[in-house]
Amino acid sequence: MTLNLKNLLNPKVIMSKMGEFQELKSIDGLEISAVSADLYGDGRDDLVLFYFPEGANFAAVYTSSKITSASINWNLKIKRHFVKALMINTKNANTLTGTKGAQGLKEIATTLSKALTLKSSQKPKGVNEVVKITDLLFASTGVIGEDFPSTKINNRVGELVKKLKAEQNKFVWFKAASAIMTTDTKPKVAYEKFKLGNKIIKISGIAKGSGMIAPNMATMLGFIFTDANIPSVFLKSILKKVVATTFNSITVDSDTSTNDMVGIFSTGKVKNSKIYNVLDPKLQEFENALKKLCLNLAKQIVVDGEGAKKFITIKIIGARSISMAKNIGFSIANSPLVKTAIAGEDPNWGRIAMAVGKAGENIIINKMQIKIGDQLVAEQSKVAKDYDEKKLKEYMKWDAIDIEVNLNIGTGFYTVYTCDFTKDYIDINADYKN
Amino acid sequence: MTLNLKNLLNPKVIMSKMGEFQELKSIDGLEISAVSADLYGDGRDDLVLFYFPEGANFAAVYTSSKITSASINWNLKIKRHFVKALMINTKNANTLTGTKGAQGLKEIATTLSKALTLKSSQKPKGVNEVVKITDLLFASTGVIGEDFPSTKINNRVGELVKKLKAEQNKFVWFKAASAIMTTDTKPKVAYEKFKLGNKIIKISGIAKGSGMIAPNMATMLGFIFTDANIPSVFLKSILKKVVATTFNSITVDSDTSTNDMVGIFSTGKVKNSKIYNVLDPKLQEFENALKKLCLNLAKQIVVDGEGAKKFITIKIIGARSISMAKNIGFSIANSPLVKTAIAGEDPNWGRIAMAVGKAGENIIINKMQIKIGDQLVAEQSKVAKDYDEKKLKEYMKWDAIDIEVNLNIGTGFYTVYTCDFTKDYIDINADYKN
Repeated sequence: MTLNLKNLLNPKVIMSKMGEFQELKSIDGLEISAVSADLYGDGRDDLVLFYFPEGANFAAVYTSSKITSASINWNLKIKRHFVKALMINTKNANTLTGTKGAQGLKEIATTLSKALTLKSSQKPKGVNEVVKITDLLFASTGVIGEDFPSTKINNRVGELVKKLKAEQNKFVWFKAASAIMTTDTKPKVAYEKFKLGNKIIKISGIAKGSGMIAPNMATMLGFIFTDANIPSVFLKSILKKVVATTFNSITVDSDTSTNDMVGIFSTGKVKNSKIYNVLDPKLQEFENALKKLCLNLAKQIVVDGEGAKKFITIKIIGARSISMAKNIGFSIANSPLVKTAIAGEDPNWGRIAMAVGKAGENIIINKMQIKIGDQLVAEQSKVAKDYDEKKLKEYMKWDAIDIEVNLNIGTGFYTVYTCDFTKDYIDINADYKN
Repeated sequence: MTLNLKNLLNPKVIMSKMGEFQELKSIDGLEISAVSADLYGDGRDDLVLFYFPEGANFAAVYTSSKITSASINWNLKIKRHFVKALMINTKNANTLTGTKGAQGLKEIATTLSKALTLKSSQKPKGVNEVVKITDLLFASTGVIGEDFPSTKINNRVGELVKKLKAEQNKFVWFKAASAIMTTDTKPKVAYEKFKLGNKIIKISGIAKGSGMIAPNMATMLGFIFTDANIPSVFLKSILKKVVATTFNSITVDSDTSTNDMVGIFSTGKVKNSKIYNVLDPKLQEFENALKKLCLNLAKQIVVDGEGAKKFITIKIIGARSISMAKNIGFSIANSPLVKTAIAGEDPNWGRIAMAVGKAGENIIINKMQIKIGDQLVAEQSKVAKDYDEKKLKEYMKWDAIDIEVNLNIGTGFYTVYTCDFTKDYIDINADYKN
């Protein structure tokens, strides 16, 4: 399914697509809006605001790139872990935009803080609380090095605040998830609900991906919201742990962007009993739910990788360490030759072996076993005895391909998710074997 | 130009193509033949033999992959640096072929040693010298993990030896260079001639490449022959040094193969004065000529990269070290987003910056300058003042694109050569910016 982004302003089109997506629920203590600053020149939504009237605990992880956007630089300077709002723009990355880009962002922050302060004072139970610019977080995604359109964005901040919705039905979430898209063809949304003590906790999350999706987050934005009451310090440690095996275990094309961010916000509106201790079993419950949600979003990003037709799961087991398993997993997942062979439905398992070899890890070749789907294809340094190429060729036609490499030298394991490389690059590669 | 490999048996087709290639000269002390063992099922040449009747000094460098072919394993066991022959087969990599693959290779070596011993005894000045199997080297390229067709190859060894030609004209070289091709569309040949003292030295070389061309040699074979008299110990050190900035400075798709080998053979038939000392200026002369030849072959491999339309030179200067320059150079050269932008003739320099950032090196962003062609496009963390997008768009249409990144923090430099990623993968990426 390819969505025409212009049509995302049309509720009928949104309705017709809704059935394919998980239904996200409203998070108490959160308000959302999305508008167009016409950055794309076609009227599509390109600005999103998440507002926490009573604040939220938060934690975030950012790109590992040495070149980062003005918005990430801004967030990194905010030392507090209790914030009031998060604003995202698409089309322009605000990266390598010099002092002008940083200045433009500051102007937007000033406008936004004033508008939110005004809004907060207008509430019935308003306490005229001042929203400071240090209460605000930002994220950007788009082209690097073009002038940041701060005036265009600044002019729409008023409307963005005015349109905030405290009750978010699935359409509100869908609109927000669509507004952060760049070359994505679908919005990415995920929802989890679980019991914490005797309270029901909700987690709603959105993400964007497409190109530049590689380990260490790539051009990826992920924003997760929960009504649970989790202290920031635990949010941070759990988020880092969860990202390591979800968002950081995916790759589309091995590139890593300057703008990646995954943030989690906890409004604390559900009054679960307070958590003081890192060993509190409630944290484990929360981590399990969060991992499920993040893996769901991460897989949606891979499935929507640029040009992708197949979803590939690469499981490395029996390694000497997790890092060995991870290194070999990504060596396979980032290999253009493996990815084009899979796109061409060519059971060329030798390329998987090539990618294991080039990872440079000290494996024992005689012990390695390679499985594709249920079939053992190689062991003892050669093709497996019962290898059935016809059966494997049938399997390669599936939309989801599982690869398992058992190194049989330890207990370390890691799973990487990726997609195939399609079309002309494969014209040459996919037919190579036959 | 795409060659139909079947036609390589047709002298008329060979003749018509010859004008496009450098004319290689005969190397005294070397004999060459190429025949078909019908490994491809279409009669194309797939076996090549290089024979040194009086032996040759030799040195080689091999793939860095942890999984290597039976032929590389064979060569690594040969501890001598004076050999009699090198035989190459295509179609089958003889990798992950178990003990059967190694056994098959040994049988071929036995047949070849007998046939060469017989031939040596038949010469007028024959001394009935025995050619031992430890005098022989092998190389293979092709599919990994399929049964090694040792019987088919073994059956053709006799003809291969019978057809050896002591006088190699350009057709003989062309036929040999064509017989080692896999998905290459053209044979790769290069020639250098230089004066060593008062003697004229000739160097003739052939190579194959195409997919899996990445740093550390990828699926690449290179064989270089000279009539100079260079001791093996110097051949080894010079080859390693030259490969580092030629064959190891190219990348097509970031993959590395199990079968890479670059070998150099010195027959010593030109009686240049003996070289005893590593500081002998004659070695520098030889190194210069060898580097020119290897860079020529390496560039031919890049130009013939699978699907490539543009040749890209990436020069990193002003780095803290060579390794920093190399790491950043390859980060750009291996970035699918950079390569697709160039294929799409999109002046998206932000992707170059992205690739610099993801390399993880401690650069100073404000000092970095990015040039494309003659034009400075970025400096001081933003687009350059005189940046002319229209002019840059014109430049992007060229067949050869030069990128220079000056980090301005040191004196380290390194140049990487690569090609673009063409077609459908770019359909999505190339239009991203516009």
